[in-house]
Amino acid sequence: MIEENYLKKWIAVDWGTSTFRAYLVQNNEVSDTIETKDGMKFVKSHLFEQTLLTLIDRWLDNDKITEILASGMVGSKQGWEEAPYQKTPCNLKSLNYITPSLKDNRISLKIFSGVSQINQPDVMRGEETQIAGFLNENPNFNGSICLPGTHSKWVEIKNNNIIKFKTFMTGELFEIISKNSVLIHSVKAEKIDKMELLKSVDKILQKPELFSNALFQVRADDLINSKGPSIYKSRLSGYLLAIELLGSVEFWKNSDIVLIGNPDLTAMYQFVFNKKVKSIKKFLSRDMILKGLKNFKKNFQ
Amino acid sequence: MIEENYLKKWIAVDWGTSTFRAYLVQNNEVSDTIETKDGMKFVKSHLFEQTLLTLIDRWLDNDKITEILASGMVGSKQGWEEAPYQKTPCNLKSLNYITPSLKDNRISLKIFSGVSQINQPDVMRGEETQIAGFLNENPNFNGSICLPGTHSKWVEIKNNNIIKFKTFMTGELFEIISKNSVLIHSVKAEKIDKMELLKSVDKILQKPELFSNALFQVRADDLINSKGPSIYKSRLSGYLLAIELLGSVEFWKNSDIVLIGNPDLTAMYQFVFNKKVKSIKKFLSRDMILKGLKNFKKNFQ
Repeated sequence: MIEENYLKKWIAVDWGTSTFRAYLVQNNEVSDTIETKDGMKFVKSHLFEQTLLTLIDRWLDNDKITEILASGMVGSKQGWEEAPYQKTPCNLKSLNYITPSLKDNRISLKIFSGVSQINQPDVMRGEETQIAGFLNENPNFNGSICLPGTHSKWVEIKNNNIIKFKTFMTGELFEIISKNSVLIHSVKAEKIDKMELLKSVDKILQKPELFSNALFQVRADDLINSKGPSIYKSRLSGYLLAIELLGSVEFWKNSDIVLIGNPDLTAMYQFVFNKKVKSIKKFLSRDMILKGLKNFKKNFQ
Repeated sequence: MIEENYLKKWIAVDWGTSTFRAYLVQNNEVSDTIETKDGMKFVKSHLFEQTLLTLIDRWLDNDKITEILASGMVGSKQGWEEAPYQKTPCNLKSLNYITPSLKDNRISLKIFSGVSQINQPDVMRGEETQIAGFLNENPNFNGSICLPGTHSKWVEIKNNNIIKFKTFMTGELFEIISKNSVLIHSVKAEKIDKMELLKSVDKILQKPELFSNALFQVRADDLINSKGPSIYKSRLSGYLLAIELLGSVEFWKNSDIVLIGNPDLTAMYQFVFNKKVKSIKKFLSRDMILKGLKNFKKNFQ
């Protein structure tokens, strides 16, 4: 019985650009979690194994091999070792993986592939695992999933396959414009003004050609009228969201949509999409990525 | 005669966010030039006078007051002292200025106002001086002037007045996307591929809703097809230019346009606008700002 439990012990890793998350899974339950800022971009490529071992050391046995399943940017060109993309249409029940060679013999490691699309070039790494997690519990789902974030994704699912998808720079544009542009002086606010957000989304939905001028107007309006940072943060958010809405309309118009992301972001998307779509269901990224890795794990049992 | 020449000696200063430029003017000719990286953002506000004095020390006399006329971001809220904006419509023959109090008695200083627009909030600082320089030599000009740059401006001129204008974040978006986003890996090129630039402009002109997705596709296409950085730099430039073109159409459609900027930028704009406008004339920012300050100087003689 101990031996059997032991065999059922493994580690799920979500290793992204900025964050490292690991889950110790025993008997299909998470018994311990580690989350650090050791994201890929902070780790030199020759130190990936060492960093991983240091972080999860307390979970390892000296006389047994612990299996690790990892997903995310760790498998990118800038990551530990490149796990080639799998092309759309892509069945998430049989996602490819690579097994980097390791110095330490206490672990085995599988890094799962991302998904690429050749026509209308696009790529994802990590989102496919979240989608696999969602599909594991909703195996008959056909429709659109939105994963808001740094690189916001809209994904069409049919018969457990990713049929096509589109990425928008929404989160990254928000971050670099807030931090690195002249708008830095105007948008430093904690909160969003919801009505201003909706008004701003509508402004650009109706006239996308105003986008670049509207961005500068955020600063100009602040210099002239000083309406406060939450107004200007809401405008910037609204303009960027509107550009995403315009480009993703084929995914959400008259549709039931699923949102997978962090709670703040999915709440904002839900608020903006309310009345624009038939229905909205929300799920957490972390839950989905763990379920996704568990689902991949099933294939090796 | 010496005394008369002496009286005609003054200094023109173009003090921007990143660059300091000063011109010693004697008998209406530039006899010496100083250009450094002591832009406003690198100078602490209590050190403006000291920095200016150090930079232009070799031009100063101990027993006479040298007049300095300055323009640009030096008069902004984050600059030496705020020179309030003058509102549109704004006659460039009578631009306001402030005279910051000085510790050193070898100089007098006038910092000229920027121009603001209340309806459709917008602001400029420095561009009005370039426009004044252009209008000094083209006093009967009525039409549109484009000043491409970090914050690209389109300005409507009528009877020596700035009637209205629109700013686009084109240059700043290009810079922060190239340097701070995931596209950093794809767009590090010296050159632009002109055909790719035109194709990219047209793509977004026809479908502006693709903008945010097209930006991410720059990276995705590089990961999948590796067409080389000059292709991807050209795409990024084209997409941003297209957004500016869409938003500024009222200024250039069926018009004769004037471009004022640095040679590389005006050449790129000329290439993109070729066949889209009736005619294009190009002028250099530096020449125009100096002419503009000379023009302002006339009012005090």
